[in-house]
Amino acid sequence: MTRLHDPSVHSFASDNYAGAHPEVLQAIVDANGGHVGSYGADPYTRRLSEVVVETFGEGAAIDPVLTGTGANVAALQALTPRWAAVVCATTAHVYTDEGGAPERLGGIKLLTVPTSDGKLTPDLIDRQAYGWGDQQRPQPLAVTITQSTELGTVYTPDEIRAVTDHAHTLGMRVHLDGARLANAAASLGVPLRAITRDAGVDSVSFGGTKNGLVLGESVVTFTEEARAGLVYLRKMDAQLASKMRFVSAQFLAMLDGDLWLRSATRANAMATRLATGLSALPGVTVTQRVDANALFVVLPRHAVEPLRATHHFYDWNRATGEVRLMCSFDTTEQHVDRFIADAGALIG
Amino acid sequence: MTRLHDPSVHSFASDNYAGAHPEVLQAIVDANGGHVGSYGADPYTRRLSEVVVETFGEGAAIDPVLTGTGANVAALQALTPRWAAVVCATTAHVYTDEGGAPERLGGIKLLTVPTSDGKLTPDLIDRQAYGWGDQQRPQPLAVTITQSTELGTVYTPDEIRAVTDHAHTLGMRVHLDGARLANAAASLGVPLRAITRDAGVDSVSFGGTKNGLVLGESVVTFTEEARAGLVYLRKMDAQLASKMRFVSAQFLAMLDGDLWLRSATRANAMATRLATGLSALPGVTVTQRVDANALFVVLPRHAVEPLRATHHFYDWNRATGEVRLMCSFDTTEQHVDRFIADAGALIG
Amino acid sequence: MTRLHDPSVHSFASDNYAGAHPEVLQAIVDANGGHVGSYGADPYTRRLSEVVVETFGEGAAIDPVLTGTGANVAALQALTPRWAAVVCATTAHVYTDEGGAPERLGGIKLLTVPTSDGKLTPDLIDRQAYGWGDQQRPQPLAVTITQSTELGTVYTPDEIRAVTDHAHTLGMRVHLDGARLANAAASLGVPLRAITRDAGVDSVSFGGTKNGLVLGESVVTFTEEARAGLVYLRKMDAQLASKMRFVSAQFLAMLDGDLWLRSATRANAMATRLATGLSALPGVTVTQRVDANALFVVLPRHAVEPLRATHHFYDWNRATGEVRLMCSFDTTEQHVDRFIADAGALIG
Amino acid sequence: MTRLHDPSVHSFASDNYAGAHPEVLQAIVDANGGHVGSYGADPYTRRLSEVVVETFGEGAAIDPVLTGTGANVAALQALTPRWAAVVCATTAHVYTDEGGAPERLGGIKLLTVPTSDGKLTPDLIDRQAYGWGDQQRPQPLAVTITQSTELGTVYTPDEIRAVTDHAHTLGMRVHLDGARLANAAASLGVPLRAITRDAGVDSVSFGGTKNGLVLGESVVTFTEEARAGLVYLRKMDAQLASKMRFVSAQFLAMLDGDLWLRSATRANAMATRLATGLSALPGVTVTQRVDANALFVVLPRHAVEPLRATHHFYDWNRATGEVRLMCSFDTTEQHVDRFIADAGALIG
Repeated sequence: MTRLHDPSVHSFASDNYAGAHPEVLQAIVDANGGHVGSYGADPYTRRLSEVVVETFGEGAAIDPVLTGTGANVAALQALTPRWAAVVCATTAHVYTDEGGAPERLGGIKLLTVPTSDGKLTPDLIDRQAYGWGDQQRPQPLAVTITQSTELGTVYTPDEIRAVTDHAHTLGMRVHLDGARLANAAASLGVPLRAITRDAGVDSVSFGGTKNGLVLGESVVTFTEEARAGLVYLRKMDAQLASKMRFVSAQFLAMLDGDLWLRSATRANAMATRLATGLSALPGVTVTQRVDANALFVVLPRHAVEPLRATHHFYDWNRATGEVRLMCSFDTTEQHVDRFIADAGALIG
Repeated sequence: MTRLHDPSVHSFASDNYAGAHPEVLQAIVDANGGHVGSYGADPYTRRLSEVVVETFGEGAAIDPVLTGTGANVAALQALTPRWAAVVCATTAHVYTDEGGAPERLGGIKLLTVPTSDGKLTPDLIDRQAYGWGDQQRPQPLAVTITQSTELGTVYTPDEIRAVTDHAHTLGMRVHLDGARLANAAASLGVPLRAITRDAGVDSVSFGGTKNGLVLGESVVTFTEEARAGLVYLRKMDAQLASKMRFVSAQFLAMLDGDLWLRSATRANAMATRLATGLSALPGVTVTQRVDANALFVVLPRHAVEPLRATHHFYDWNRATGEVRLMCSFDTTEQHVDRFIADAGALIG
Repeated sequence: MTRLHDPSVHSFASDNYAGAHPEVLQAIVDANGGHVGSYGADPYTRRLSEVVVETFGEGAAIDPVLTGTGANVAALQALTPRWAAVVCATTAHVYTDEGGAPERLGGIKLLTVPTSDGKLTPDLIDRQAYGWGDQQRPQPLAVTITQSTELGTVYTPDEIRAVTDHAHTLGMRVHLDGARLANAAASLGVPLRAITRDAGVDSVSFGGTKNGLVLGESVVTFTEEARAGLVYLRKMDAQLASKMRFVSAQFLAMLDGDLWLRSATRANAMATRLATGLSALPGVTVTQRVDANALFVVLPRHAVEPLRATHHFYDWNRATGEVRLMCSFDTTEQHVDRFIADAGALIG
Repeated sequence: MTRLHDPSVHSFASDNYAGAHPEVLQAIVDANGGHVGSYGADPYTRRLSEVVVETFGEGAAIDPVLTGTGANVAALQALTPRWAAVVCATTAHVYTDEGGAPERLGGIKLLTVPTSDGKLTPDLIDRQAYGWGDQQRPQPLAVTITQSTELGTVYTPDEIRAVTDHAHTLGMRVHLDGARLANAAASLGVPLRAITRDAGVDSVSFGGTKNGLVLGESVVTFTEEARAGLVYLRKMDAQLASKMRFVSAQFLAMLDGDLWLRSATRANAMATRLATGLSALPGVTVTQRVDANALFVVLPRHAVEPLRATHHFYDWNRATGEVRLMCSFDTTEQHVDRFIADAGALIG
């Protein structure tokens, strides 16, 4: 096979337009050769389990899966019985971007709450957290939050703790969609466990692909209860990799060391640099706090398409002209500065 | 990350105990760097589409997915309406080894037929293909066959044609689970299209992992009807890779050239060599035709555990002492001969 | 068995607190005795099919089912392929009151739109009707509207026609949840077909229980396309009555004659009478148009619990003090006038 | 509505070709009138709960549902977590006659075992009860047996106890499909509890329709564990009757007194009488023990269609010419004797 693309092209469209970090690729190469057990019975998956305990604390466990949707579905199924509903923000990826998989494949009713910034609070949860014992209402038995959120904002550890305390008081469990968990931890300058286990979260969809893996997601759980049946659910949700060593090795590359942090820190810093630069331009409005690697911004109408042609990005709200700019582990100062310069030239 | 395993270890347990072919790894490396569109909007996936047309003929299309279970579920869902049942052999992977995913995730009722060798025939299909219009019977609207079968046997093109003609006459579509399709084509000495499209098959789960990929499966379809809704189903079945370039590049490495054939031919040849060597030993019975890369054999009881300790393999039928020996793209004559020698020494 | 309840008690809680109309009971008695075919192969179901053609026009067909949820799920499944999403109002029964059955049992993603009065319009539909061909979006392939709505309002035939024309132009089908279809037709003074088939609707959940049946719902369809697979779906959704003669006979009692109209007219008239009487009281606000048999009203706080103790009704919005008062086929002027008098005495 | 059928016609096709027992109809009439709480908040459902405790013992509870399929699905869902499989006989109604509802609607993988007489034993259960902890195998966490079986045979209390003891030892729960439980109890001359709760069964689909109800099934459970979430599952499985008083009143008519026993005893006696009479004819072979109200018999080929034309019955096995003759609560000696006489005349 020959190379078919131009590796000098960069975009702000999505952190999964980026490729894989070279250290991740090397881990795949190192894990290759010879025969090892399949479906997780291999030394890379075993070592990953140890690293997850080192990272998240005693009792933590990881089950690698294949897509973010698969991680969310399996995690929520393991966390709740058949008759459960799960409270989430109206903007939650699990509700808007997963093709209905949580409902159709997972059998989970989602109860949504509008938010201004993608973040749930105890008060917001209460808008859907009621009706236990009412046979006609799907029972709200879990909450799922996203960290960092779909709007690029980040919960502080205290904000998460407020959610988990409230949910637990109500008999509800808490799942965290951490497709960009590393970005949140990097943004806050705290370890991964500070915004998950130590903040009372029960289980996490811990993402890899958006932070530089070739392909790999996972479910990280902190108690036996949170992972009841998880391995069987992973199989029946078509999320069990046969040559799992290759998924686990990637996670090892990311987690057994500080690659996760280096990559997320860079992506975050580039988003902040971009926000700073664009904010200084007339007619540009940044619409959400830039806590992580996403920037939501309204650009002057005439500048949108010329910028998109070179830099690639998605509309967020066509009515308002809001667009989303995502930075990745491989976004550089040059990429950012060129965008700002191009925008400046267009806006004048 | 450091290497954690001994690459000199070989096993006969499964073709997914093997790692990835070096050419496949190189394709991942080549596809890396820079930004390309996600979810399939990349040049590797585009090129793969062309290669699939070259391989299977005009009108063929490929949709990469992540697991064999995912491929089967999505393919069967696309092939049938909500109220369909699918006829399969009792030994079919889709029935016995997928955690109930076809039924639970796919919503598909499976109607099973016992076979002696894993192969369906028109007569066998008729045992379940009835009751159209009976509102109380799930409607048998598709057949799924496995090539090569779970018992290591291979359908000839004529045998497949007999199945597809019969099914089509009954208004049923035909899916082929081709997790080991390459082994079957190599065994028969025919192109991949001869046992799929040219034999009347409507859609195929075309496997990669068992033939040397890191991770990658696909659904190959031959008509618009066979892939109605497939891309939406792939998403809602949690089978849509975000950085799809890396899955497509692996398939390109395998398919755009003859790697698929070299690897499968080797695995098959090793199974035949193993069968020949073991057959010559007293008390050894080969129980199925060795058409592809699997060997089913009853070994003298006392030899099983010592052999297993060194060579790794799974029991197939504990009652009869039948075991399954799988050869892979990286199985060598030395691996095989050592097994035969060890068996010979134990059997005496 | 002895009578265990006081038949003189009336309530405004729900039209399913009421019992069955005596003519419906008589139909069950008449249909009893001897043996007839089960699962619909009986003369009552056959006659019902004729009556449905007489009522809704050539090509109409009816499939009796057992619950409103079952009717909605089976109807929507028959109307759409596996990958469809269905647009509905945020207040739709199918979204809020069916335990997640449409999503979990039906495999249908619901795309919701807020409305002020429970009624969808072409503009409102457009808020969710987009993204066809986007593999990551559940495909919006149907709209479901409720007539009369969950807020007691009624679509005019022209309003329905606007919805169906718009939806059909977009390639979407239209389902109508007609749990209270009779009330809507009675309110408008039009035949049942004027607000269903003649207004372009593709299929209807045609309710019986809320209009005086013991137990019985149905799916009425107007084209072969709208009922593709419906009988198989009815079975797999656990909605197929074995002794169907008894369900069909009830529908015959209601539909083969004017019982449906007499009952609905009375319930509607009582709601109007109640609205008129209560509106005249100080501090009472009627919050929705009273088109059918439901009345939404804010009562003075101190009056709510004393009134509820005697007359039974449900809160609609605890924050605002809005309550829902439902009238039934057996609500009388005396029941209404007593409520108004009691309210007047409390409000003073 | 006018009577459309001839109540003098009798058939041996199915116990749901029969109508309703007059005492059941009277109960519906008595329960009518005035307003009571819906969805089970009515005095008939409350009284039924007491009667179920009187019948099955302290701790027993009943949840009325609408179809046998619905009862089985909801009961099995409540009894098992999302990842469970359920062991059943290959002939089990839940596997062969429910349109795939248990798998598709219930999300339950069924693991089947062939039997000679429809009855499972500890040894037969062991053929599928293995693989706990194997992530690739749906976990066998329950057994379901049918009493009386689909083949008209009846488990003795000891046979059930052997099944439940074995299952419980393996950590599996036991469900009993009791669509014809009354026939089994009548056949054995024991109370209903002797073959359910007292024999170690965890939950029962307790049928009404086949024993003379208009329409009504139920789930009877003996522990809190066996009914965890059952009321929510009933709703999301579309099995919750709004005017539940009418279902509960029918069960009261059957259970609060001896109607269940009178009806079942008659149906059983008629099957025995029929078996005795037919056995005496040349060329007739009764193929299963006649324990309850079903008779499986091979008739001389030439006699089948003439008999069917008058007496109505279904083929069981077209290959062997075996037919099924079902007796009902309203089958009389005259019906039976006429069949025997007609058969005798044809056989000569």
